[in-house]
Formats: sequence, structure tokens, C-alpha cells
Amino acid sequence: MGVRAFHIGSVLVLVALMEWGGALSPVLQAQTPALRADGARMQERILRLAEFGRDPRGGVSRLAFSEADRQGRAYIIALMRQAGLTVRVDPAGNIIGRREGREPHLPPIVFGSHIDSVPNGGRYDGVVGVIGAIECIEVLNAHGVTTRHPLEVIVFADEEGGLVGSRALIGALTPEALAVVSHSGMTVREGIRAIGGDPDRLAEVVRRPGEIAAFLELHIEQGGTLEAEGAQIGVVEGIVGIRWWDVVIEGFANHAGTTPMNQRRDALVAAAELILAVNRVVTSVPGRQVGTVGRITAEPGAPNVIPGRVRMSLELRDLSAEKIEQLFERIREEARAIEARRGVTITFTPIDATAVPAPTDERLRRLIAETARELGLRTLFLPSGAGHDAQNMARMAPTGMIFVPSVGGISHSPQEYTRPEDLANGATVLLHTILKIDRGALP
Amino acid sequence: MGVRAFHIGSVLVLVALMEWGGALSPVLQAQTPALRADGARMQERILRLAEFGRDPRGGVSRLAFSEADRQGRAYIIALMRQAGLTVRVDPAGNIIGRREGREPHLPPIVFGSHIDSVPNGGRYDGVVGVIGAIECIEVLNAHGVTTRHPLEVIVFADEEGGLVGSRALIGALTPEALAVVSHSGMTVREGIRAIGGDPDRLAEVVRRPGEIAAFLELHIEQGGTLEAEGAQIGVVEGIVGIRWWDVVIEGFANHAGTTPMNQRRDALVAAAELILAVNRVVTSVPGRQVGTVGRITAEPGAPNVIPGRVRMSLELRDLSAEKIEQLFERIREEARAIEARRGVTITFTPIDATAVPAPTDERLRRLIAETARELGLRTLFLPSGAGHDAQNMARMAPTGMIFVPSVGGISHSPQEYTRPEDLANGATVLLHTILKIDRGALP
Repeated sequence: MGVRAFHIGSVLVLVALMEWGGALSPVLQAQTPALRADGARMQERILRLAEFGRDPRGGVSRLAFSEADRQGRAYIIALMRQAGLTVRVDPAGNIIGRREGREPHLPPIVFGSHIDSVPNGGRYDGVVGVIGAIECIEVLNAHGVTTRHPLEVIVFADEEGGLVGSRALIGALTPEALAVVSHSGMTVREGIRAIGGDPDRLAEVVRRPGEIAAFLELHIEQGGTLEAEGAQIGVVEGIVGIRWWDVVIEGFANHAGTTPMNQRRDALVAAAELILAVNRVVTSVPGRQVGTVGRITAEPGAPNVIPGRVRMSLELRDLSAEKIEQLFERIREEARAIEARRGVTITFTPIDATAVPAPTDERLRRLIAETARELGLRTLFLPSGAGHDAQNMARMAPTGMIFVPSVGGISHSPQEYTRPEDLANGATVLLHTILKIDRGALP
Repeated sequence: MGVRAFHIGSVLVLVALMEWGGALSPVLQAQTPALRADGARMQERILRLAEFGRDPRGGVSRLAFSEADRQGRAYIIALMRQAGLTVRVDPAGNIIGRREGREPHLPPIVFGSHIDSVPNGGRYDGVVGVIGAIECIEVLNAHGVTTRHPLEVIVFADEEGGLVGSRALIGALTPEALAVVSHSGMTVREGIRAIGGDPDRLAEVVRRPGEIAAFLELHIEQGGTLEAEGAQIGVVEGIVGIRWWDVVIEGFANHAGTTPMNQRRDALVAAAELILAVNRVVTSVPGRQVGTVGRITAEPGAPNVIPGRVRMSLELRDLSAEKIEQLFERIREEARAIEARRGVTITFTPIDATAVPAPTDERLRRLIAETARELGLRTLFLPSGAGHDAQNMARMAPTGMIFVPSVGGISHSPQEYTRPEDLANGATVLLHTILKIDRGALP
């Protein structure tokens, strides 16, 4: 035992030795010294990209299909070509940079993310996964490594507008979705054309199960769990399912001065009990499920009138659809008790904005975790509470997702920040996971 | 004991006998047979008046100063003159019908209410007190009774717009209040002119303490307490004080999918706790105090974003200003506990829409209750949760207020209804209370 003779990110390697007793695996003994992502280069490129769509209020507004998006995509395409990739824009507007492998009959290993942002968003969301993917190619190039499988770096079109590019890949981009007006002001159909796609040829984009060996996405955690737990790598267990309801509480509007407390059917008091019931039910069982009431209105809405009707939203998210259903059933039971107690009626109307849970591939989870541990990184298994292109890809190919910490858990905000060492950790884990898949780690 | 030989509303008299054992007081023995209001006549006049401003949706929209208001006032003036009153419109627009007494040096006994309505309001609010006052005069006329004091029937101008007429009587109608645009579209100043007043001569309207022997107002209860308790006459203990606050709860807006439950600073969950705390604190002590949260907004207000800020109203009403203050202090304590528990800040900003409690004259309360009991009516002492002109009059003269039941506790609605027998009961109690005051019941 002791400190080894080679130095690459030596601090990291020393930590690794301490973490797992110094017994470097044969794989890492062979490859770790050389194959390490460069966090400083990644950070520099992220900041360069942030110039396109720079928002005077801070952060970026690089809305899908906008001029800023097109400029950013041109910058990424240039980086890809510089890294030796063969670049094409598919009919859905996805950018695909391909690096051939030694065995041309093998399906590609695909990895990437997106570069479009929300209005006044951050510089890291999506971008880390794209710059990290290109970084993997650069490191392979620098060390003259050729994989068995072809590699494809993908930049999905219009992620923030509804995972447009990945929906096209699984054949789920409907005419209705193409008609939606995006943040850019263009319809999705017009937008796809504006970035070089062809919405009339979407059938050519669809990939079938087996056509992709694996899909991997590196992304900042859009929450503070990794930071709070002191973990460096998040192994994403899946993208949670989401269900929404419109909740209406009908009481009876009345004069706030003349209606005694015991004669009231106050819809807002009942709503308050329901909001707390949601919180109580969701936190009453172990797990990472979340439940939120984000929107509320009370009618008639005057300080001197007892609210007769409250409308509010209810959102539940979890990796398990069954668990969401169980939580909802318990919330409904609580609602029935409130109805009886407060003399109100409560109705729940499901809203068609639901997403089914998309678990990641269990083998890939283990592979990512193993790789991170070999690199001496503290890992945490966690769900992704936000939506990602990976949730569509998981319906077609073995899919894994890697999170790196976002300082303060902040996302979709100009304050988004991920440290260069975390960028490097994420891309290095991505790279070695790719190499393990390439060597046949997925049976 | 037994049934007496005279018959006036005989059912009522029989009830009276049962209620207090048949021992009619000497006063009632002398006067009750004759002096009894006619509920059918009152009902007919109320429905006639409801033709002015009849709303196609039901009920009436007789907004102060409107054409309908002016027509309704003309109808009332005609009734007053028919009843032998000397009618004038004072510079504030109040209609005053005077009946001279036997002792001209005595100050008048004043009674009345208002006939303006809220938009799409009911036929009884205010009107019952005006028609009931005229009814008292008619009954006195029919029986040839002349009182010692002069009697004045008053119809206050623009009650619903802020007790305008009674504010003028106590010298509290400010230039700012005159500049307010009323429901009619006119400013109060313009409106007063439209109904025959003169806003430049308001000083002439002001009455000083001692210039009015007593003020009495008959009104429908704008709530369901009398009905719920099976009482026929409400003896109003006073008009409650009102305090309003603007409450702001500051939490932290965050992604509803990615922010674990234990890392949230959800302003709406905190608001829900506060709404329930208001309800709990207000109902935790005996009394008729009320507390209401009628208005609420949550920002940013999306189903998938944890609310970062909630604004809501808080209103407390009670007859005792001290009790309101104590309740508010306890609510503030609860708010401090919520702040600590939920990681939010809660601020209360007083809104300048407060009214100080206006207790009625204790001697008049006793007199009204005694009169009602002598008439065999079940009485209940209760506060008025709504504002009335009586609250201004109470600052200048001994003031009493009489409530009659409103079916279903409904008010400010086309569904308002008070039964003819309740109209008669109210006016009869009003009449006999006036007669007792006239005979020197107020020392």
C-alpha cells in the first residue's frame, strides 16, 4: 500500500486510496492515470457558450430555436468537429456527432444532453452534459483510444419546451406537439426548421430498441441533495412520474362580519387543512416522494367575505406510480374527513400533464456507482425530480443518468453554478462508464 | 289566567301568555291591544319599493344616488307625507320626516335606516328599518297618540357606500370621503347634490350630543343567529370593531420536483398553518368574535413551483377592541412559531380600514329586551357583525338597535327574505321602545 507513482488529479487518487483501501481495480490500474476529464477546459467552454443568449439580468436566455440557440448550436458543432466528430443535424433538429468504433456492426453508445435554456436561466443546466460528452471524446482522442462501439454525442432539440428532440427519437412527437408555440414565438414545427431539421421527415429519426447500445446523460442536480449529503456523484434511479390534479373546494361565501364561526363553510379553512394533509401524507412514509400545492385562488377574494370556493393545484411525484396512487388515495381520505368536518365538497380532477415514472437501467446504475467509487467519489442514489430527455430514451435503450452537485441546489436561475472539480468528476465518471459498456459490461 | 278578550295578532298574544305566564305589564295592558304594527302593510310597501331598481337577475340594484335611488326616495317621501310627517332633505341628502310632540323644547327621538342597496342586493336590508319607522307613525296616527318628544323618521343617504349620511350627522364626512367615486359612477359630492343635498353646507347637518334624545334602528339580521337560536328579536349589543391586516409570508420558491420535502421553505404550507391558527385562536375563547382570511395569492403560482411568497388578508371583528388586540397577539405568537418551524418570515401590516367598536346604550338594550319580552317575543343579545349608521349615531346619542330574523341568514342577496310576522314584531318592538323613551325610560 501507499501512494502510487503516477499523478493525474493526484489529490483525487489519494482520496481514492483512502476511500477503498488503495486497491485500484485492474481496469483503473490500466486506464485511470490517463483518462481524466479537464474541469478547467469544461468550465471555460461553458462560459464561452454562455455568451450566446447572455441575459443582461445575469445567466442566459437561450430559448430553443432562437437566434441565441442557433449561435450556441453553431459553437457546439464547431467544438464537435474540432474533436473529430462527424456531425449531422437530424430531421428533429438534434445535433449528432459520431465517432466510429472498431466494430462497425455494433450499435452506438449515445450520450449528451441539451443547450437550450429557460428564460433567464442558468449556464449549467443541460450544457454540462453536452460539454462533458465532448470532453469524453477529447480525452479519448488525446490518449489514442478507439472504442469497439461507435460513439454518438447528442444535443437534443428544445428540451425545455417539452423534451422535443428525444420525443422525436422514440416516435412520440405528435402533430399537436409540433403545433405548440414555443418560448421563441415560433411553433415547434417552425422552430425545428429554423435549426436545420425537417418536421416532415421525423419518421427517419425514430430509433428502435437495440439500435442504441446505451444512453447516458450527465446533468447538474436540480436540487440540493448531493450538496446536503456531501456526495460528489448522484446515481439517478430514474426520472420520477408526475401527476397533477385540479382541486376545487366548494364551501359557502358569506358575510365575514355576520356569520358566526360555527356556521361557516369556509372553503379556505378547508383548503388549509388539505394543504397540510398533503404535506403530512407525503412526509409520513420513507422515500423521496414530493407533493406540492403551488397554485391557489379563493373566491370571491375579498377580505370581508368568507371564501366560498377555492381552486388549487396538487402535484405528486415519485419513481413509483403505485406509490403516487397510494399517496393520492390517502390524500383523498383526508379530503373526505375535511368535507365532513367543514361542510364543504372537494373534487379532484386529473390534469393531462402527467408523466409516467422512467426508471434508469439497474445495471447502468451499478456501473456508474462502481465507476465513481473506483475514482474515490462519494455517491448517492437518488431520483430525478425534474424531467430530462433520459426519461424518453429509457423507453428505448438501457439508460443511465449521472448528477453532479449544483451549488445551493439552485437551477433554472442565473445563480446556477457547478465547480470545475465537480464538472471533471462527472465527465470522468461518464467516460469510464462508457468504456465499461464498450468492454461489454452490459450483458 | 286564560285567553284574554282582545285580539291583535292573537297567536302572538297567546304565545306571550305562555312565555311569561300571562301577566301582562300595566303598560301593555294599557297599550298593547291597539299599538301593533301591520306586517302585511309593511310587506306590501317593501315590495312596492323593490320595484325601483328591480334587478332582472332578482332582488334590487338601488345604488345610492342612482335614478332608482331617487325614485325610491320619492316613494318614501310620499309615504311620509301621507303619514302626516313634515319632510325635508338635509344638506347631506338624508330624508327627515318630523312629527311634532306635546313638549316642543324636548329633543327628538330619531329612528330609521336606509333604502340604498348594494349591486344585486336584497329587498329588506335597510328598507325594513325605514318602512318600520313609517309604520310606527301610522300606528300612532291611527290611535291618536301624540308623544311628548318630537319624532323624526330618518332615511340616511348612501349607507352602502360608507355610512355617508350618518357620518355627516356627526361631522365626520371629510373632503376625501366626498371625493370617493360611488357605485353610481358619481362622486359622493355629486351624488349628494343629485338627491337634493348641498355638500357645501354640511356644517348645518351636524348634531351635537343632547340634541337627539335617542336613536333607534330596526334592521334585518345579516346572519343566521336569530334563526338558529329560534329568537324573534335581536337586541344588538353594538356594532363590532373591525381590524384588517395585510399578511405577507416569505418562503423560498423552488422546483417542486427536485426540492426534497425537508429542504422546502413553502410559503403556502406556512400560510395554511396560519389560516388554521387564526381559526383556532378565534374559536378558542367564548364570545361572538370572528376572524377571516378572505383573500390569498401565492407566487409564482405554478403547479410545479413551490410557492415563495403568499399574501393574504386577515380580518378580526369583535365588540371589544381589547379582545381584538388579544386575539391578534395570540395569532402573532402562532405566526412566530410557524416562522421557526417552516423557515419563513411573516409580516402583518395594518390596513387603514378599521372601525372602532360601537357599543349600543346599555339602558336601551334593556328597554328593547323588556319590551320584546312583554310582547311575548324570544330575544337574543348579539353583536352586529356588519356596519350600520347606528355605529355613527352611537357616538353622539343614546343608540339602540333591533334585529329581526332574515330567513337562512341571507343578506346582500336577491334571496333576502323576512316574514311579515317578523316585520310586525320588529316594528312593534321599535314602537313600544320609542313610547317608553318618550315616557322617560332613559333617566
